[in-house]
Amino acid sequence: MADLLWPGDHHAGEILTDAAILDAMLQVESAWSTALVKSGIAPPDAEVAVGALRDLITDDDIEQIAVEAESGGNPVIPLIRRLRDRFGASPAATWLHRGLTSQDVVDTALMLCVADAFVEIGTEIDRQIEVLVEEIADHRDTRMVARTLTQHAVPMTFGLKAAMWLRGVLDSRDLLSGLTYPAQIGGAAGTSAAVVELAGVGADAGRIATDTASAAAAELGLTATTPWHSVRTAITRIGDAAVGCTDAWGHIANDVMTLSRPEIGELSEGAGGSSSTMPHKANPVLSVLIRRAALAAPALGSTLHLAAADALEERTSGAWHVEWDTLRSLVRRTLVAARQTTRLLAELRVHDDRMAADLADAGDAVTSEQSSMANVAGHPPGDDYMGAASHFIDTQLERARTASPTGEGR
Amino acid sequence: MADLLWPGDHHAGEILTDAAILDAMLQVESAWSTALVKSGIAPPDAEVAVGALRDLITDDDIEQIAVEAESGGNPVIPLIRRLRDRFGASPAATWLHRGLTSQDVVDTALMLCVADAFVEIGTEIDRQIEVLVEEIADHRDTRMVARTLTQHAVPMTFGLKAAMWLRGVLDSRDLLSGLTYPAQIGGAAGTSAAVVELAGVGADAGRIATDTASAAAAELGLTATTPWHSVRTAITRIGDAAVGCTDAWGHIANDVMTLSRPEIGELSEGAGGSSSTMPHKANPVLSVLIRRAALAAPALGSTLHLAAADALEERTSGAWHVEWDTLRSLVRRTLVAARQTTRLLAELRVHDDRMAADLADAGDAVTSEQSSMANVAGHPPGDDYMGAASHFIDTQLERARTASPTGEGR
Amino acid sequence: MADLLWPGDHHAGEILTDAAILDAMLQVESAWSTALVKSGIAPPDAEVAVGALRDLITDDDIEQIAVEAESGGNPVIPLIRRLRDRFGASPAATWLHRGLTSQDVVDTALMLCVADAFVEIGTEIDRQIEVLVEEIADHRDTRMVARTLTQHAVPMTFGLKAAMWLRGVLDSRDLLSGLTYPAQIGGAAGTSAAVVELAGVGADAGRIATDTASAAAAELGLTATTPWHSVRTAITRIGDAAVGCTDAWGHIANDVMTLSRPEIGELSEGAGGSSSTMPHKANPVLSVLIRRAALAAPALGSTLHLAAADALEERTSGAWHVEWDTLRSLVRRTLVAARQTTRLLAELRVHDDRMAADLADAGDAVTSEQSSMANVAGHPPGDDYMGAASHFIDTQLERARTASPTGEGR
Amino acid sequence: MADLLWPGDHHAGEILTDAAILDAMLQVESAWSTALVKSGIAPPDAEVAVGALRDLITDDDIEQIAVEAESGGNPVIPLIRRLRDRFGASPAATWLHRGLTSQDVVDTALMLCVADAFVEIGTEIDRQIEVLVEEIADHRDTRMVARTLTQHAVPMTFGLKAAMWLRGVLDSRDLLSGLTYPAQIGGAAGTSAAVVELAGVGADAGRIATDTASAAAAELGLTATTPWHSVRTAITRIGDAAVGCTDAWGHIANDVMTLSRPEIGELSEGAGGSSSTMPHKANPVLSVLIRRAALAAPALGSTLHLAAADALEERTSGAWHVEWDTLRSLVRRTLVAARQTTRLLAELRVHDDRMAADLADAGDAVTSEQSSMANVAGHPPGDDYMGAASHFIDTQLERARTASPTGEGR
Repeated sequence: MADLLWPGDHHAGEILTDAAILDAMLQVESAWSTALVKSGIAPPDAEVAVGALRDLITDDDIEQIAVEAESGGNPVIPLIRRLRDRFGASPAATWLHRGLTSQDVVDTALMLCVADAFVEIGTEIDRQIEVLVEEIADHRDTRMVARTLTQHAVPMTFGLKAAMWLRGVLDSRDLLSGLTYPAQIGGAAGTSAAVVELAGVGADAGRIATDTASAAAAELGLTATTPWHSVRTAITRIGDAAVGCTDAWGHIANDVMTLSRPEIGELSEGAGGSSSTMPHKANPVLSVLIRRAALAAPALGSTLHLAAADALEERTSGAWHVEWDTLRSLVRRTLVAARQTTRLLAELRVHDDRMAADLADAGDAVTSEQSSMANVAGHPPGDDYMGAASHFIDTQLERARTASPTGEGR
Repeated sequence: MADLLWPGDHHAGEILTDAAILDAMLQVESAWSTALVKSGIAPPDAEVAVGALRDLITDDDIEQIAVEAESGGNPVIPLIRRLRDRFGASPAATWLHRGLTSQDVVDTALMLCVADAFVEIGTEIDRQIEVLVEEIADHRDTRMVARTLTQHAVPMTFGLKAAMWLRGVLDSRDLLSGLTYPAQIGGAAGTSAAVVELAGVGADAGRIATDTASAAAAELGLTATTPWHSVRTAITRIGDAAVGCTDAWGHIANDVMTLSRPEIGELSEGAGGSSSTMPHKANPVLSVLIRRAALAAPALGSTLHLAAADALEERTSGAWHVEWDTLRSLVRRTLVAARQTTRLLAELRVHDDRMAADLADAGDAVTSEQSSMANVAGHPPGDDYMGAASHFIDTQLERARTASPTGEGR
Repeated sequence: MADLLWPGDHHAGEILTDAAILDAMLQVESAWSTALVKSGIAPPDAEVAVGALRDLITDDDIEQIAVEAESGGNPVIPLIRRLRDRFGASPAATWLHRGLTSQDVVDTALMLCVADAFVEIGTEIDRQIEVLVEEIADHRDTRMVARTLTQHAVPMTFGLKAAMWLRGVLDSRDLLSGLTYPAQIGGAAGTSAAVVELAGVGADAGRIATDTASAAAAELGLTATTPWHSVRTAITRIGDAAVGCTDAWGHIANDVMTLSRPEIGELSEGAGGSSSTMPHKANPVLSVLIRRAALAAPALGSTLHLAAADALEERTSGAWHVEWDTLRSLVRRTLVAARQTTRLLAELRVHDDRMAADLADAGDAVTSEQSSMANVAGHPPGDDYMGAASHFIDTQLERARTASPTGEGR
Repeated sequence: MADLLWPGDHHAGEILTDAAILDAMLQVESAWSTALVKSGIAPPDAEVAVGALRDLITDDDIEQIAVEAESGGNPVIPLIRRLRDRFGASPAATWLHRGLTSQDVVDTALMLCVADAFVEIGTEIDRQIEVLVEEIADHRDTRMVARTLTQHAVPMTFGLKAAMWLRGVLDSRDLLSGLTYPAQIGGAAGTSAAVVELAGVGADAGRIATDTASAAAAELGLTATTPWHSVRTAITRIGDAAVGCTDAWGHIANDVMTLSRPEIGELSEGAGGSSSTMPHKANPVLSVLIRRAALAAPALGSTLHLAAADALEERTSGAWHVEWDTLRSLVRRTLVAARQTTRLLAELRVHDDRMAADLADAGDAVTSEQSSMANVAGHPPGDDYMGAASHFIDTQLERARTASPTGEGR
């Protein structure tokens, strides 16, 4: 898939496309059939492999299911109708989806797809960390001028700047490490009454509910939990983590765009983009596109929170429905920005000559604070004014070396 | 087109799809070639009919152009490359796109598509007005209880409630009537230098720029204006109008959902949606889906404003790019909600027996204010307590009868 | 008033402070008493001058009323209780607030305060237009390099850049000219039943409602309209206009901040701000603070739309209440940014030597498009490459000369 | 403090008021002076107790500092100027603020105030948990009808509904437990160059920076970390946690408002709010005000993310400045909503008779799914249809009993 109006969208591939969502729904129904059988509720021939479900649905069905989704408000109803019709009379048809509700299937399918996306986002983050660690090794002592509120401040190193980028990326890694992707298995109103009823009188309701939900979650590789139909923290945490990532990458892109201005020239993208009419131009295109994602993400994240805050009774009217496409846009764009940031960093060109020249040109602007401090302390100014830059670099490198959150970014 | 995660999306049809945007870009290039020829700048054989351009591009190209859009940051560059390549050496290939910049093509194509969408949204609004006028005629005197902060307040009529819905819809009509859809024709940095250069030394720059831009705009049915690359008011006004529409429809949907609760039962959707597991349910599905749009729209509108506020120099980095898909989502969803609201209103069932019963049950709650007022005034309470409801209905009906904004809603 | 965490806040003075809101509420009650008397509903001694109401309320009351506002959800209830108590038994006490509801008083008072703010914002905009017109006169032919996506593009003039800033400011003027500030007079549920009841049996309800509401609105200098308790278009239009203004000013601030970077140096703020530790620095402080407002405004505007979209029945639960402080923040900040932008423009220093030098340094980057166009046209390149810049300047200057919206910005 | 336009604001008391922020800035300067002295950099008489600083600043200064904050863009510059002036020539005046930058003081002061707020929010959450645990004990078996998409679904218990509210509150507790409040100590550009210079040639830069920053953080009760001037994850995590809380409380408020509608009457607020004209009304005022906060919070949270994403170089222009007042509004409102939710829950009245009646009235609507399931399973329907409700209650009760996050909500 590729979106003409979101250049780079193809980097998200098939993740969270309509086809992927539909397939995930089939996985949920299959896993549930397995759970029903394993727990002895349904007969063995009620189990349906996902392949068998896939065989019943063609690509043409997807658009038609999307159209039919309107009448009940979600795509599960037309999907189940189709599957049952096509199975014909059989235990599979009879038992399919029994005990579940539409929200179970939509929420769990979205979690499956989102989890896939975050595996890839995590891989990109790991690669970004590697690249930044190398960049820092190369430029720990590359001197440049620090800029605050657009103006020259004091000296710093490009290594420290890269370490601050790394800090943001490590914070994103921490955010991801805190995520879980729960399956949603609760039935019509989150009581699991249907599956307990299917199990029959005298069944231990708590055990039935737990066992079947856990079996389905395990089959799908998701976290087992009790129903969360109207408590949407899992969704908002995912949204916040995605926005946290684009925040970190937006910061990097902003620095690259500014420092690659022709009058500054301290950085440049490996392969700048051209123009439709000015072929000589080397625009910082990756940075531009990453910034785009960083501008869009906070509003999408806020929509997910609004949906959570609008929760009402046992299924929310409208606020649940608004999550789906919002989550898809946010997560796909996050993955696209992840890939673009990895490439931006990997191909980034550092012009240490321009850094040195700009620092030299800054002149008094970057030395006056030092003089003032030396005067206060009553001794002559030191040989340099890099402070603890190298130490602050080491702190981030140390975080990068460990796989678990270190708290530095919290 | 139909989006599995945005049920009802098919109501927006092909509007603002990738194919529609690409076709609009071809229309822009064709109109521009006509303008160049008409103004005597390009030779007659430089003119290219849009049909000829369409012949050069296949459906397969769209996805490929989307992929290639990343390297320059927008889809115009790979599109023009393709078109020139496929023309072979010819005046058409030589003159194609000369004088334009990518932003001209993207902005103008989006305006074409958005204008198409708003024609349809306007048609839906007109239909909603008709339906509401009929509804009001039927229920001008249907008594019901007014509710404030969820509690019973005083008596009102369903006619007045529908008139308040109508007020919102008429306000939306006013918002639409204030919109214009400007073409964007400015060249690399909004100076129109390229087209003036193409016209040659001694040309009257102002006249050349005006004539060619006006000719292209006229060809496309858009408004001619001077370049607005970094002044995005046209976009934010469109966004605000779209959000204004979903605000009005959201209000209607909220009332319908509340009043169709089983304990209240004063309204119901003509054809309520069913459930995957509880076929007896009649969910207010259209209202649910309309509310969904109303929850999502404000954040998308704010992204367009943020993009406008981030404007920088002669083309903005990232903030321009974020507008495209945001505008598409917002406008398509607005059209979908428009259609759903029309249907909701047309099929709405009003249960005046339940309204009467609830009003009767409200008892003292809805009469105490009247007693208190009569006491202040020193005369016995009147026969009813409907105040000027009928007059307020007439005010909106009067607005509905005129085609032009009346200011009531401003 | 001055907000420690929003530097510049004092420029908004007392507008929309708690004291100003409370005073506006007193104006509303006074105007309503006048309307009741003028229409013959209340006896002459029921009329209360606003001064008499002000005498009943001390500064100490404001905080106490704010505290007591929680129990009923709004400040009108404790205010009316105080006023009635302090009047003692009197026609004024008896008739005070009769026919109104809390929402009438809060909405109308907010409109009064907001209208005051927009008068001042409008004055600032007029002044900005004057300054920009002068700036353009001085720099119509000051050549500089245009920049797109941060990179050098083609030549332009600073006059054109200032004309684009002017375009945004004129668009803001257009947005303001479309605003009205309606009084809210509708009683408990927007039927005006109470005032009709007060007028007694046999009264012409429509005329009573219209006359009293119009009289009160006229007294207050607001627009008369029928009740709009749950149709919030007046609020969202105000919000959108405010955000439209900060968009325009944000654009200016962005350009100033970028062009006043030391490596570019083409612009500088008249009096740059200093640093707590680096006194030599001249930070573009006004631009920084204007950008701050432009970043915050879209989210506040979206909250107002969300509130409008959440409208329910005859008074909305929570969504009405969220408007008040949101509107205050948005409007005060808009006024602050208006003042800061006026000053930024009035004191802006244009360094045409640096503009000339950067243009010269840009070299081939800014001439290659011209060569390419001349080649297509088959004639030698012209003497300059300014295109229709001067014409585009004139278009905005022409808009500036007329007081009414010209549509260029729509 | 009490905000007339945000009823309930007084519950946040002095937290994050201008006076509290200014006092926190004095605490930061004092703690830093202690750190400088303890590390041997400054002479012993450079240490300044916070009391001594407080003596130099009067209440009248606060507004004046706020006004003067505009010229440098933040309040630290005029504060330090005042303090130095009033000290007269002394080591305290000489050493005050040396090694710090404005951003260090503002960021650290905000963290101090925010940490105070979250202690109180945490206390409210603990109390909410207690109340909900009691509520659940009382109503574990109170039967009611579950509602999905506003319509009757299947039976449930009020105990389960309260357990879902509890789940949201426990998720909020988890979010809070993940927060840290880092001090910001980095100097002009985050290199700690000034303090290293003050320590003199030959000093171990890393140790100096670490020791002084840690000493200051410890003095203030904040977390020590390396500088984070342009990496704003600490801020966005706080914002996300605050929004997460209002999400959870909004959910509760929505349920209470709906179930306290007169036609439903299953819940009511302990002390409903009255009306300015209809004294008989018992509006669900606390719920209304809580919902208000839940509607406003997501947009404020998104502004904090936008600020993080806009990070640029070593201090960000505008995006840093927009955080201050946004964070204040968000956190104060969160604390107010916390208090209101605690009271709402503590005073909530549960009408089990109405619950029973509505469940009985629902009739077939709530039994059809059970029949259908029994039919699939081939056995007669069970005696009830509560499923695992009791088990799901226990899961949340178990979480409530442990102090540490259990992951259920993640």
